[in-house]
Amino acid sequence: MKPFMDENFLLQSETAQRLYHEHASRLPIIDYHCHLNPQQVAEDYRFRSITDLWLSGDHYKWRALRANGVPERLVTGDGSDWEKFQAWAETVPYCMRNPLYHWTHLELKTAFGIDKRLNPETAREIFDTCNDRLQNDPEMTARGLMRRYGVEVVCTTDDPVDDLRFHRAYAEEIGKNESSNRKSTLMLPAWRPDKAMAVENVQAWNQYVDRLAEVADVSIDTFPRMADALRRRQQYFHEVGCRLSDHGLGDFFSEPYTQAEIDAIFGQIRSGKELNQEQTAKFKTAMLELFCEMNHEMGWAQQFHYGPQRNNNSRLMQLAGPDTGFDSIGQGINSQAMARLFDRLDSKGKLAKSIVYNLNPADNEMVATMIGNFQDGSIPGKMQWGSGWWFMDQIKGMQEQMNTLSVLGLLSRFVGMLTDSRSFVSYTRHEYFRRVLCNLIGEDIERGEVPYDGYEKARVDQMVEDICYYNAKRYFNF
Amino acid sequence: MKPFMDENFLLQSETAQRLYHEHASRLPIIDYHCHLNPQQVAEDYRFRSITDLWLSGDHYKWRALRANGVPERLVTGDGSDWEKFQAWAETVPYCMRNPLYHWTHLELKTAFGIDKRLNPETAREIFDTCNDRLQNDPEMTARGLMRRYGVEVVCTTDDPVDDLRFHRAYAEEIGKNESSNRKSTLMLPAWRPDKAMAVENVQAWNQYVDRLAEVADVSIDTFPRMADALRRRQQYFHEVGCRLSDHGLGDFFSEPYTQAEIDAIFGQIRSGKELNQEQTAKFKTAMLELFCEMNHEMGWAQQFHYGPQRNNNSRLMQLAGPDTGFDSIGQGINSQAMARLFDRLDSKGKLAKSIVYNLNPADNEMVATMIGNFQDGSIPGKMQWGSGWWFMDQIKGMQEQMNTLSVLGLLSRFVGMLTDSRSFVSYTRHEYFRRVLCNLIGEDIERGEVPYDGYEKARVDQMVEDICYYNAKRYFNF
Amino acid sequence: MKPFMDENFLLQSETAQRLYHEHASRLPIIDYHCHLNPQQVAEDYRFRSITDLWLSGDHYKWRALRANGVPERLVTGDGSDWEKFQAWAETVPYCMRNPLYHWTHLELKTAFGIDKRLNPETAREIFDTCNDRLQNDPEMTARGLMRRYGVEVVCTTDDPVDDLRFHRAYAEEIGKNESSNRKSTLMLPAWRPDKAMAVENVQAWNQYVDRLAEVADVSIDTFPRMADALRRRQQYFHEVGCRLSDHGLGDFFSEPYTQAEIDAIFGQIRSGKELNQEQTAKFKTAMLELFCEMNHEMGWAQQFHYGPQRNNNSRLMQLAGPDTGFDSIGQGINSQAMARLFDRLDSKGKLAKSIVYNLNPADNEMVATMIGNFQDGSIPGKMQWGSGWWFMDQIKGMQEQMNTLSVLGLLSRFVGMLTDSRSFVSYTRHEYFRRVLCNLIGEDIERGEVPYDGYEKARVDQMVEDICYYNAKRYFNF
Repeated sequence: MKPFMDENFLLQSETAQRLYHEHASRLPIIDYHCHLNPQQVAEDYRFRSITDLWLSGDHYKWRALRANGVPERLVTGDGSDWEKFQAWAETVPYCMRNPLYHWTHLELKTAFGIDKRLNPETAREIFDTCNDRLQNDPEMTARGLMRRYGVEVVCTTDDPVDDLRFHRAYAEEIGKNESSNRKSTLMLPAWRPDKAMAVENVQAWNQYVDRLAEVADVSIDTFPRMADALRRRQQYFHEVGCRLSDHGLGDFFSEPYTQAEIDAIFGQIRSGKELNQEQTAKFKTAMLELFCEMNHEMGWAQQFHYGPQRNNNSRLMQLAGPDTGFDSIGQGINSQAMARLFDRLDSKGKLAKSIVYNLNPADNEMVATMIGNFQDGSIPGKMQWGSGWWFMDQIKGMQEQMNTLSVLGLLSRFVGMLTDSRSFVSYTRHEYFRRVLCNLIGEDIERGEVPYDGYEKARVDQMVEDICYYNAKRYFNF
Repeated sequence: MKPFMDENFLLQSETAQRLYHEHASRLPIIDYHCHLNPQQVAEDYRFRSITDLWLSGDHYKWRALRANGVPERLVTGDGSDWEKFQAWAETVPYCMRNPLYHWTHLELKTAFGIDKRLNPETAREIFDTCNDRLQNDPEMTARGLMRRYGVEVVCTTDDPVDDLRFHRAYAEEIGKNESSNRKSTLMLPAWRPDKAMAVENVQAWNQYVDRLAEVADVSIDTFPRMADALRRRQQYFHEVGCRLSDHGLGDFFSEPYTQAEIDAIFGQIRSGKELNQEQTAKFKTAMLELFCEMNHEMGWAQQFHYGPQRNNNSRLMQLAGPDTGFDSIGQGINSQAMARLFDRLDSKGKLAKSIVYNLNPADNEMVATMIGNFQDGSIPGKMQWGSGWWFMDQIKGMQEQMNTLSVLGLLSRFVGMLTDSRSFVSYTRHEYFRRVLCNLIGEDIERGEVPYDGYEKARVDQMVEDICYYNAKRYFNF
Repeated sequence: MKPFMDENFLLQSETAQRLYHEHASRLPIIDYHCHLNPQQVAEDYRFRSITDLWLSGDHYKWRALRANGVPERLVTGDGSDWEKFQAWAETVPYCMRNPLYHWTHLELKTAFGIDKRLNPETAREIFDTCNDRLQNDPEMTARGLMRRYGVEVVCTTDDPVDDLRFHRAYAEEIGKNESSNRKSTLMLPAWRPDKAMAVENVQAWNQYVDRLAEVADVSIDTFPRMADALRRRQQYFHEVGCRLSDHGLGDFFSEPYTQAEIDAIFGQIRSGKELNQEQTAKFKTAMLELFCEMNHEMGWAQQFHYGPQRNNNSRLMQLAGPDTGFDSIGQGINSQAMARLFDRLDSKGKLAKSIVYNLNPADNEMVATMIGNFQDGSIPGKMQWGSGWWFMDQIKGMQEQMNTLSVLGLLSRFVGMLTDSRSFVSYTRHEYFRRVLCNLIGEDIERGEVPYDGYEKARVDQMVEDICYYNAKRYFNF
């Protein structure tokens, strides 16, 4: 029986262990997509408590708490830090086989050096120890944690109207302290313009466009003017270091339209009138294509996160707000629309480097092969199938993504892991991913399915390092 | 090489073996969903032969026979008991890797103590031995078999118009013999009102409603009167011990409707006029919501079995009747409708404890996460994703359901296995399930992915026992 | 650590090794579906170079090259044989974990006796060695390679208008040399009438029908005359030895129609007028049903390959032509239509032996169970679920197909592997398949899940041989 979560956690063969310890573990992290709060980085935020760090914004944990019978007061309600932590400590032992069980203990170990397991008997001691460290240890701050995990680059997720003041302030500050021998994380914005497409709510959309007009200093009364405003903002983002966009979609869409139609639709909604379903589809298509063309023009990479079915529980969402754990995996995705979008862009010579993340693993094979249709030999791995996302960001999900990518594409060109988290201790997920990766490859070698001597040994070692770090470094070129 | 089907069958590690033998194997069975015939229990049915027991109603075996080239006469036709058994004995060796191969030999072993393998060479001997036992052994009857397998509770599947006379007679009889030191199985009805929604066939539906009116002693000329009649029947079921409903659906539906529309639709169909597609959807939605609200009002749990594509072969169905092996796994399921149904009920505070069974494993991740949206902290594991159903009730299907449930929810709160069978020897499926469960957890422990010492050892042991027995006991509270 | 690709490649247990070496490896190959060029067989084609053999028509390799950043000139363009081979040799080490890596080295080993691994360091040597063998070794020709791999029968893929001259010439020639002790491959045509249904392009369809009229010597001005012409051609194919059809479908369709409607639709399109969507669906349904009935009348088996989403990249397709690597896995398949088609045929007593190949593995369980609905006991395994197809023709895809077939049907009746390739060295895929099969069964035996002594040992050994060879031999009866 292998001890729980020892140094060879998830590494079931000697080859896997060697690959991990000699090639994967010490490489820096390029976190090209996350939801960290840039203000917390700029201000080098210090956490009030382990509850603040762990439970104030993590809908994974909230879902587990609710499933375990914990009332909302101790989930997103007004329970005290200790009460909430206690409820979590009681729930953790019920999370075995869920990634939360592993994440929790990896985070305790790597951030706090705690090897104890969290359960009702250890809850108080762990609560106190963590809080003491968070309050008193100079390294246990937002930035300290990123340094601890070797984060070389982090890309936050930002709206075009954002002034990026925190990115700039932080950049300025670390620029000054360059001489310091403490390696600082480079924090870059990433462009997420979903609100510009959210025409379902006419009023909110118009308010958003007003705000965009203001920050871009462009009067937006036509679609081309909206494009102008967005381009100005994109230019600004680029100057602050942005090299990457992200687009959140329920599904892909690719409705035929003419520019005249879009002009008319724009006039209609800008004057406050709702769009019908067809108009909505046309407008969103035009806007998405515009964004994709802009991404290509700037030489950025673009990400598509698609497939959630959101806000399924209206009663609890009323109580707890959006993004609090009532979204799930949707289905019935439109592979034709995905193909048409990429094809239109490619036909114009405007298909940027792209990463597609599907949420429903029933789409895995479709996406993996669709990506391949648009590899054009211009750069290795131009079209990427993103790592297991959200619900799929766990051992089984990552294995399936990597195994399917391997047989339907080139694993060796994979840009690998990202955090997609709101938490500064989620960097353990890179360790988790790297262990899973090394274990898969190690197992193949042990079974005689991947060679591991001579030229090929060096290639395998390099492949591991590439997927952990170098592929992303070359691909994004931050 | 491990011997075939020894005491450590399916248990590939010492830890798995310990978990099974020390924690799983000896717990009673709560069979909360099956299709056993209550009359056979009430009358303590004695089987004419192994053919009667095995081959008179099992569409799994019929499908295997047909696939093996056996003509219908020896499947559902007028072949003799021996001829049919012989055809089955010839087919069994062709079923290797199919669950039928394991079920067959587990049943021979646990019900009859036969360790021989069924094949053409052993057919006659096994036929004679089994028949002798079935005819002469006082314990080889319907009730005796349930006692043999440690069935504490069994829920049959019953129509609202059923008078439940067999449940009552049986309950009365075992009530009288309480002093007996033989532990008797508690047999309860479960409410399956699908026929009340089956408006596709106007005439059959009206006949059914007439019958309902008669047994409920309510004149049914409006939708509210129909609801009255159903509530009366439900009350009656509750008095006989029912605590659980079951709803069979091709797909979820959740069509918007007004009460006035439903009243009009009801009038139309009750007067014998067919409904169009939209009216059908509205009526079914209203009826399903009514049932769900009734379930909540009575404090029952509700089950949804959805996703089959039925009656695909009209020629052979003509010959052999419905439910004889011509149904299969459908696809294109409506996750939006499932969400809307649960959301409407939850918004009214009327969402009962629910178990959702999907048939197509391509829906696994969608369902597992959808369930999570409606966990509200009121009781642990309120929303359940049901165990691998029908075609998925086999090692691979169960493993996938448990592995996916583990990573997307809380395995530890799972109410576990049910039989869903027409046969008194299918209780071996609980043994099968428990072995699969223990093997999965044992493997995780051996690999160092689940801890197994101190507090956590007790938790893991308890988790196994909970999934095998205690979770269901608490959840249904029969 | 097991050496890479030794004689026990993919065979992880002693039992698997025994099954493979004693039962699977030496059986001949029945390649009942491939895209080999009959002219190359008739003329006993000699390959110009390894580039000609490997890279002149293989879209799997082209996709890998593009994904690895190789420009189109070295993929399908005017690069020299050496330049293209060199690009491939540079790409191969990036293909680890992709089936191309295994295929490449299996082919080098079994066709050329080369144990070296292909990489930039070995590229020149391997290029020269292979080319020397291809140019000078009398056995390294189209026919020689088929003999080398033990190909007993090969079915090519042919259009009804084809004159089959190469099949006839080859048959005549090998008939004459019968006395030779070199066992020659039997080459038979297979009927692929997709163009007769391709009414989307009115002009191309009419040209095709004109050609059909000419070769069948029937004037085609009505649907019945078209049927006549096709029946004549089918009779001709039958005389040349054809016993098998193949139908390529984006999806199944089964639109209700009347003969009068079909007559009118035929008139319309034959006069050069486009069909609307409904007319197209009706016409295709009628045509597909006609083909299926014809297959039954001739006692042929029929294959359905369905589910690709084709021609997704218009720019590169313009450059490189169709079938050059821009097709992918589609989704949203219509299981109702599949059921209706089979049911209509079965109701008329005209459902031929059928093999269904799905492309998207998300359909696996649906297809596996759908097949079972139409097993009618007339012959064992009448309805077949085809082996992992195209993108799914790799270890993971084959394992999933065989594991799912095992639990939802009868693996023992499976007709097994086909090549579906344009290359004379793809016969290694049968070795690959057989190793995967033996490993799965061997593992089950080692785990005590399949018995392997007495009667059952012989059955397991026979099952392996049946799936590798005898099932196909009996099923197709060439």
